[in-house]
Amino acid sequence: MKKLINDPRYIVEEMVEGYVKAHPNHIKQLPENDRALVTARETREGKVGVLIGGGSGHEPGFMGYVGDGMADGVAVGNIFASPSPDPILEVTKAIDKGAGVVYLYGNYAGDVMNFGMAAEMADLEEDIQVGTALASDDVASAPKEEKEKRRGIAGEFFIYKAAGAAADFGYNLDDVVRVAKKANENTRSMGVGLSPCSLPQTGEPSFEIGDDEMEIGLGHHGEPGIEKGPIESADKVADRLVHDILADIEINSGDKVAVLVNGLGSTPRMELYIVYRRVEQILREKGIEIYRSYVGDYITSLEMGGCSVTLMKLDEELERAIDHPVDCPMFVQK
Amino acid sequence: MKKLINDPRYIVEEMVEGYVKAHPNHIKQLPENDRALVTARETREGKVGVLIGGGSGHEPGFMGYVGDGMADGVAVGNIFASPSPDPILEVTKAIDKGAGVVYLYGNYAGDVMNFGMAAEMADLEEDIQVGTALASDDVASAPKEEKEKRRGIAGEFFIYKAAGAAADFGYNLDDVVRVAKKANENTRSMGVGLSPCSLPQTGEPSFEIGDDEMEIGLGHHGEPGIEKGPIESADKVADRLVHDILADIEINSGDKVAVLVNGLGSTPRMELYIVYRRVEQILREKGIEIYRSYVGDYITSLEMGGCSVTLMKLDEELERAIDHPVDCPMFVQK
Repeated sequence: MKKLINDPRYIVEEMVEGYVKAHPNHIKQLPENDRALVTARETREGKVGVLIGGGSGHEPGFMGYVGDGMADGVAVGNIFASPSPDPILEVTKAIDKGAGVVYLYGNYAGDVMNFGMAAEMADLEEDIQVGTALASDDVASAPKEEKEKRRGIAGEFFIYKAAGAAADFGYNLDDVVRVAKKANENTRSMGVGLSPCSLPQTGEPSFEIGDDEMEIGLGHHGEPGIEKGPIESADKVADRLVHDILADIEINSGDKVAVLVNGLGSTPRMELYIVYRRVEQILREKGIEIYRSYVGDYITSLEMGGCSVTLMKLDEELERAIDHPVDCPMFVQK
Repeated sequence: MKKLINDPRYIVEEMVEGYVKAHPNHIKQLPENDRALVTARETREGKVGVLIGGGSGHEPGFMGYVGDGMADGVAVGNIFASPSPDPILEVTKAIDKGAGVVYLYGNYAGDVMNFGMAAEMADLEEDIQVGTALASDDVASAPKEEKEKRRGIAGEFFIYKAAGAAADFGYNLDDVVRVAKKANENTRSMGVGLSPCSLPQTGEPSFEIGDDEMEIGLGHHGEPGIEKGPIESADKVADRLVHDILADIEINSGDKVAVLVNGLGSTPRMELYIVYRRVEQILREKGIEIYRSYVGDYITSLEMGGCSVTLMKLDEELERAIDHPVDCPMFVQK
């Protein structure tokens, strides 16, 4: 796969440098650590800090979601690898306004370890209270009874959105964590992979797949899915993804949901809207109300091909959170 | 190239259906023509109508830019093909608020013919005054002396932005056209293609290129560029693109520009920000002030690989226009 890069060793540094240069009114690097980015805007004293993070290569996840109404800071990892505890701790210190900090990230072993270490250091060394909410929305990644083992994929976006709003509303740390956990509990995603990305350092494809195959349930780093087979029509793929989600979470006629059809990187918006079209048909037939829709590249895997469907079941509190305006470099909602 | 589609014959209809379903508060189809989309919001009487359009496959261009602060309506063509005069005329009738309508589109023979016919019909049959401003920002597509022969590429985004703002400011038709033409006069783009897209109906690649090659100046539909050669580093590519732009338009130390680094479809944001990093370095060294930056997929070519750099030289009027808030389904600016 051809790439517009310079030395692959400095790819993350150069991306971050470009990002900060492009959006100086939104985001800045901390002098202590160039993988520690925080909002350039003033944050209110007493507001719970919202910290997100994870590996690079998922842009707009995660650094694209720092800004008004979402996260206050982000710790940036190498490609598909957790950030180390240092930038997490530096961001924590910078965004704590006396009300503690919530860590939001996907349920991956490396992230759990590094964010966990940073949380301990924040507590012991800095006396900053840290709460944590993991994203584990990927239905395909573990059985229903073991949701705590599931990976976080595109549903992370909804969890950031909900928690960012809750923090903005003036909720205390416990309540921001509660909202983030509820958002995760209410969120399910199912994805399909069509084509791999290649890792800049090695040129290796992230997974193997035949020229006429698709893989249902494929993970964001090429983790194996649950079924490989011949590529099907957009409608059949959408049917399958929504079916698996609705078999996993009770969403009934009259319920409201937020919908995200997320592209993995190289899938055109045209195809995402064709998938959305079918998702909307299915939900309408079931009497499920779509409260708000998002279609586009929200959490990617470099130039991977494919998409995922995410549903978040809403209650009044989550509706209000999902409606809350956002102003981030890579995502703005009025 | 694998695609998440149903029947390729209905790909545009299904995309549009999904799009309208996803954003019912923003956009609606006209009952007269399902390729004619207009804003779902109330438009002020006396405001100049802004009409954009072109072939499909360039999403977010063009239908993604209908909304507050940009276009009032869009005519949707087949993939990489101009819309016919009918939807253009229907949109014209729907968005005319007594002050006339401006047509904004890229300088392609099919578009010039069809929008021209629609403008004539609007004038003769409907007594609606139509103004036109073509985008011809692609430096590579014709010599400097023949700018009127040049194609429109990613710079179209700036032209929509400027004209949409001018119409919102309450300018009359002549002045909206003047601002759109000035935006085009002040805008230059240069692109690089790395990998083709494939057309859904035929599966044919949009252009041929070797595994380790890039093509400078490639057009948005695979039109030949000006130089094919081995792929270079992001910095060298950025140097080349910016060099060619600055050789074509006088932008001096102290001048202000808006910058767009536009992805063609499958190029990750990471790479676009690495290109932006170098663009920013070059402009800073020359004393050119970056007033506002846009980095992402703004006008694509399905899953084509590569990017373009666009600079728009600003004066006070264009600064104000570029700052004007926008609320469209695929682009929001606070």
